[in-house]
Amino acid sequence: MKVPAIETLAEGSVTQQATGRLLVETTGPGFTDITETVARWVLASGILQGLLTVHCRHTSASLLIQENADPDVRLDLATALARLAPREADYVHATEGLDDMPAHIRTMLTATTLSVPLLDGQMTLGRWQGLYLLEHRDAPHTRDIVFHLIGA
Amino acid sequence: MKVPAIETLAEGSVTQQATGRLLVETTGPGFTDITETVARWVLASGILQGLLTVHCRHTSASLLIQENADPDVRLDLATALARLAPREADYVHATEGLDDMPAHIRTMLTATTLSVPLLDGQMTLGRWQGLYLLEHRDAPHTRDIVFHLIGA
Amino acid sequence: MKVPAIETLAEGSVTQQATGRLLVETTGPGFTDITETVARWVLASGILQGLLTVHCRHTSASLLIQENADPDVRLDLATALARLAPREADYVHATEGLDDMPAHIRTMLTATTLSVPLLDGQMTLGRWQGLYLLEHRDAPHTRDIVFHLIGA
Repeated sequence: MKVPAIETLAEGSVTQQATGRLLVETTGPGFTDITETVARWVLASGILQGLLTVHCRHTSASLLIQENADPDVRLDLATALARLAPREADYVHATEGLDDMPAHIRTMLTATTLSVPLLDGQMTLGRWQGLYLLEHRDAPHTRDIVFHLIGA
Repeated sequence: MKVPAIETLAEGSVTQQATGRLLVETTGPGFTDITETVARWVLASGILQGLLTVHCRHTSASLLIQENADPDVRLDLATALARLAPREADYVHATEGLDDMPAHIRTMLTATTLSVPLLDGQMTLGRWQGLYLLEHRDAPHTRDIVFHLIGA
Repeated sequence: MKVPAIETLAEGSVTQQATGRLLVETTGPGFTDITETVARWVLASGILQGLLTVHCRHTSASLLIQENADPDVRLDLATALARLAPREADYVHATEGLDDMPAHIRTMLTATTLSVPLLDGQMTLGRWQGLYLLEHRDAPHTRDIVFHLIGA
């Protein structure tokens, strides 16, 4: 397969950075869409071209860029993670509950950090891409996410 | 195990950034090696020290840094993904074809974004590392990848 | 679920970058905690606000941010990876030993690159997060990790 050349869309200087923090209250296993709150912060920063990095400060919750249209996709993704990291395995680390070790494994199989380029003050997400926080524990948690923006 | 100190290889200022885009025409499931086209764009940017970030703007195609020598490794990786995300699971989201939901899961298990440091105008990939676009759908697709370079 | 706004913690200019390298001698499958050596290098760089990127230059060893408290968590994570990428599958690529292809798959399922924002000269890791190199091969290897810092 012939791969074409990369087209340059923008070039520029690098003048500023910003660091931010988001606390999300989760209510058990599931996906929380944080795309809009991130988009608003990116726009408010005034940085038009650059790079956004997202870091989830936990080992039993994680990040994922996935389909934002049919919620059944997220249901099937959760089912797939539950199959890949079942509750009923013979875990050595079992003192924090049946949901704890599967939560660590599901975090390992998804993302703890993600970076998305910015153009015109917006993340370059695809049309069907949303940015999600994944809670893997049964109980509600306060999840702490750090954001970094760099560019101009 | 004693871990030594990190050796500093280069220090410098930060003066420029560039954003690029690549459209890859895929022809069904498989790996497309984009290492060379990325290397050429990095070199042409004139940025010698810095950071490259790659972002795949899809939820059924993904990125992977993996072995560039024996093609059998990529064959076995594809087989492993097919086993971890089988076509024959009882998916709720089934309206887009038997290959759609496995494609989302295989995307979740690999990478949507990757960042590689640059030195001397080159990605610091290991000798056996290639940068691949992974198509997970059966039909040919036009896949859109965004690149960001920052440094000097 | 209502998601609040992101709070800006710091804003500033971008003045410097640094690139570093770490060689880790591994002794077979397992986790090597590199958090402290990275923290020391970050502090020594003088960069207080910015972004750290880590890149593992191998396809049979990888990176992971995971729990730093109970070592049983790491034991169960290794067991999970061994179950998801078993040694006894019918691999086509088998010339480098029974541990080779599982090592590539375990690398695919974890991380080759990671990026963590910095504040006050420190990685913004969560309280329970450690940064680990994962060796997936049976034999001892010298593993080469590249680091990039950018900020001010």
